[in-house]
Amino acid sequence: MYSEKDFKEKIAELLVVRASAHLHDHQREYPKWELSNKKLHRLLEEGVGGVILFGGSLAELSERCKNLNSWAKNSLLLCADVEEGVGQRFSGGQWLAPPMSLNKIYQKDSQAALNFAELYGRCIGLEARRNGLNWVLAPVCDVNTNSKNPVIDVRAWGDDPLIVSALTCSFYKGLSSQGVIACAKHFPGHGDTEIDSHLALPTLEHDLKRLMQVELVPFRALISLGIETVMTGHLLCKQIDHKNPATVSKLIISKLLRQELGFKGLVVTDALIMGAMTKAYGSTEAAVMAFDAGADLILMPDNPDQAIEAIYQSLLSGRIPMDRLENSLQRRRNLITKIDSFSKLPSTQPLALRTHDQKFRYQTNSLCHDLVVSSMEVLHPGSIQEVNSGLNLIRVDGVIPCSPLHRTSPSISLPEDIGYRTILIHAMGVSPWTEDSNAPLDIDRLGNGPVLLQLFLRGNPFRGDNDFKEPWSIILNQLQRLNRLAGLIVFGSPYIWKDLKSNLNPYIPAAYSPGQMDEAQYQLLTSLIAPCGDNIKLKSNLDKEFTI
Amino acid sequence: MYSEKDFKEKIAELLVVRASAHLHDHQREYPKWELSNKKLHRLLEEGVGGVILFGGSLAELSERCKNLNSWAKNSLLLCADVEEGVGQRFSGGQWLAPPMSLNKIYQKDSQAALNFAELYGRCIGLEARRNGLNWVLAPVCDVNTNSKNPVIDVRAWGDDPLIVSALTCSFYKGLSSQGVIACAKHFPGHGDTEIDSHLALPTLEHDLKRLMQVELVPFRALISLGIETVMTGHLLCKQIDHKNPATVSKLIISKLLRQELGFKGLVVTDALIMGAMTKAYGSTEAAVMAFDAGADLILMPDNPDQAIEAIYQSLLSGRIPMDRLENSLQRRRNLITKIDSFSKLPSTQPLALRTHDQKFRYQTNSLCHDLVVSSMEVLHPGSIQEVNSGLNLIRVDGVIPCSPLHRTSPSISLPEDIGYRTILIHAMGVSPWTEDSNAPLDIDRLGNGPVLLQLFLRGNPFRGDNDFKEPWSIILNQLQRLNRLAGLIVFGSPYIWKDLKSNLNPYIPAAYSPGQMDEAQYQLLTSLIAPCGDNIKLKSNLDKEFTI
Repeated sequence: MYSEKDFKEKIAELLVVRASAHLHDHQREYPKWELSNKKLHRLLEEGVGGVILFGGSLAELSERCKNLNSWAKNSLLLCADVEEGVGQRFSGGQWLAPPMSLNKIYQKDSQAALNFAELYGRCIGLEARRNGLNWVLAPVCDVNTNSKNPVIDVRAWGDDPLIVSALTCSFYKGLSSQGVIACAKHFPGHGDTEIDSHLALPTLEHDLKRLMQVELVPFRALISLGIETVMTGHLLCKQIDHKNPATVSKLIISKLLRQELGFKGLVVTDALIMGAMTKAYGSTEAAVMAFDAGADLILMPDNPDQAIEAIYQSLLSGRIPMDRLENSLQRRRNLITKIDSFSKLPSTQPLALRTHDQKFRYQTNSLCHDLVVSSMEVLHPGSIQEVNSGLNLIRVDGVIPCSPLHRTSPSISLPEDIGYRTILIHAMGVSPWTEDSNAPLDIDRLGNGPVLLQLFLRGNPFRGDNDFKEPWSIILNQLQRLNRLAGLIVFGSPYIWKDLKSNLNPYIPAAYSPGQMDEAQYQLLTSLIAPCGDNIKLKSNLDKEFTI
Repeated sequence: MYSEKDFKEKIAELLVVRASAHLHDHQREYPKWELSNKKLHRLLEEGVGGVILFGGSLAELSERCKNLNSWAKNSLLLCADVEEGVGQRFSGGQWLAPPMSLNKIYQKDSQAALNFAELYGRCIGLEARRNGLNWVLAPVCDVNTNSKNPVIDVRAWGDDPLIVSALTCSFYKGLSSQGVIACAKHFPGHGDTEIDSHLALPTLEHDLKRLMQVELVPFRALISLGIETVMTGHLLCKQIDHKNPATVSKLIISKLLRQELGFKGLVVTDALIMGAMTKAYGSTEAAVMAFDAGADLILMPDNPDQAIEAIYQSLLSGRIPMDRLENSLQRRRNLITKIDSFSKLPSTQPLALRTHDQKFRYQTNSLCHDLVVSSMEVLHPGSIQEVNSGLNLIRVDGVIPCSPLHRTSPSISLPEDIGYRTILIHAMGVSPWTEDSNAPLDIDRLGNGPVLLQLFLRGNPFRGDNDFKEPWSIILNQLQRLNRLAGLIVFGSPYIWKDLKSNLNPYIPAAYSPGQMDEAQYQLLTSLIAPCGDNIKLKSNLDKEFTI
């Protein structure tokens, strides 16, 4: 039997706490959720066994992981939500086009898509490992059968279970080959939901038969390949367990996932801090319930000390049998052994400017380029002409920060080169709306001239369905009636693109990419814009800009 | 006599080229001005002797400086425009309140201000050196006698030559004590100009007598203390040299600065890429002219290879006498000797998370706090009340990026806590203006309720006088007539604050800080907002936010 201190240290091993990759406390982007260095240092010394990292640059991430390892009593699990590339979370890393791009490629050439998926996994795995991470929280295995899904959308590999299986399996092979652990999420499947579990609890109405035919297919495939971890979703799967959401459901975790699907690896909860959990149970009780239900790793409890104490009391009181702890610890030891065995693999230099790394950067840039070009759609290429005075109307989620845009983004600079001045529509801006439901855009306020409309719309957490309520298809008709639509570009959701495309006048230049990064912007805009005069390649507006 | 290669290598030593501190080419914020790694590597191998760095995080800066040193043939000068703290350019560093804050403090307590100025220098010097820089391009010695100055403003230490002298001398002592080189700028004085030299050439009408009484006073003081480098301004000083701007004027550099003021250190040009130079001469010819006029170091020529070639040809042809080169090289050798002698000083560990560093961070945070509190003005503290639905109208220069604001900035989160929703007014937004010159703000569009007006306005390069054209004093009257002004806060220019304050109804809560950073926002807003109910300290809205 352990002493109280040893006992709590064992429990602490099973926690994964959140930290910023920024080095200083004052730089944390979410100080409420990201622990201070002091607290983090203490918790790691007291045995906490995992950290999930957000924000900062690649150089900071490397430095940070070294620091965390030096503080930790135990071998650490260091993970991040880098589903679309390390650059999705850490500046300087590669941000690839989202998984939905691979699905678009699969429609045309399945083998090419499978090859891309493996490269996609290799790219993320290599960059994660070289910068200190040993666990990537991907692939998303949700089969996105609901086009109104507010939070999965382009993060999914498709809406067909077999295609999602095939692509995520290729991804997993690529990722594994680089020596990092993977995570299939969000069990038993977050694809057919219309509620964002960051805000409230979504419900899944399907019975086991349907789940076996759709939602569970990719999970089964990855389990058969030996995927190391599975993340539970915060969703109520009514027909399996009418009371407890998956994260705290014995029926889902212990019965369905472990017994029926035969999963032998680690089960990790989704972040306990999310609305779906905190509203129903509070994050500390949710931690106890999840552990009791069979989860091995507890992700982001609101208060790690309280979570440890509460699990400790539950074990002491016999509410949770002691072998739950032993089993989870044994699984974690197996995982650490596997991670240690990876250290024999080559190529873990973290640094960025060696020849070796330039080659890596070149390869991942090429991959990103290929993904974008293979998954984009362009109607009437080369047909947007130079104008005297046009409007480049860009819709983004937010501006501080604005993740897809910066000062020299192609979506801004290329239209400026041909006479379109940029106006950003975003949640904190002056309203562009009228009260007229047939003409919702206050076009007079925006100014004269043709309008190039660029929409950055994709499933994003914490926004609910707000993004899908903006009446873009009515606005499209409004601009077309006025004969002012010069072009339409959608970056993100394939469902919104499909809907808008069906409303487009046949001669309107338009384009779509699942991706929102610079490469997607560059490819779509250079495809649509007519070559002007002598310039075959568009000049950018970079030479107008300069500091001090 | 040198071989051509050796000769050009000697010339290259005198160049200072621009690079991003980001590690990868694709991350450069200004790719037109910031050299690619490949080109930078070649130029440093070929002897280029200096690099000015912009952008990126502190961790990247450290890594970057190590890389640059490893590439360089010569001992490198590594500099940055960190006039207000390393954090002004590199995220994670300390961003202090601007120099004008010290002037405000000086008005109340001159000795306190002098002490602060020395700490200010120490803080910047220590953080610069620990992260790889050896040369800080500060202090700004311009006496800001012109309240319409579009580019100096709060960067200046005041409008009185003796106060500017006293404060910059204290700053220099503090900076020097930490083992970095300083730079007095912009000679002979950019304080009485209404044109931004980034855009065009400003003219100074004053004669030598006036220059000696005002503009030159701080330069003389710093020269007498032994300041190592002086930067020339791109300005036409008509009464001294009616033809050539200071940067390319023998009369200004060789006669006034060297002979009359007795400066023995290095003269560095301001960036040759700036509009004032490129429009008149082109950057390459400007490099030759500046070198001929007596400048030792050539900052940011548009094309470094062409600048080297052009100076080489001018020396070969006899247009420039050979001893100009020898003299500049000798001065540079002396500077490098001085820098090398600094390496005997203690405390150069670059890393961020050691105890040592936490102490440093604590001290610099305290300094920043003290500067803000000592230099702010608050009218009617504690008098902004909670409302049901108010508007928090924030005016910023731009949003991608928005340097003073982020998701959890006090200027956004604290008003939200008491019922004010944020609307940002910025250059790329939907217009908030009407055609009515007496009521220029389209208040109906913005919504109902009381308005808290927050203006982020300070001298910023490349904006011309656009910022000063917005009719804020008329808008103030408009809001007051409607009885809708709940409060006014100005972050930045003391001139705009003074103007607006004189138009304020006497009972309106209002506040001012020269600084725009979080600390300035936090102090002003917590001073103005009334304590609500039980909460003595305002809660922030941080707990509403969270990713994935």
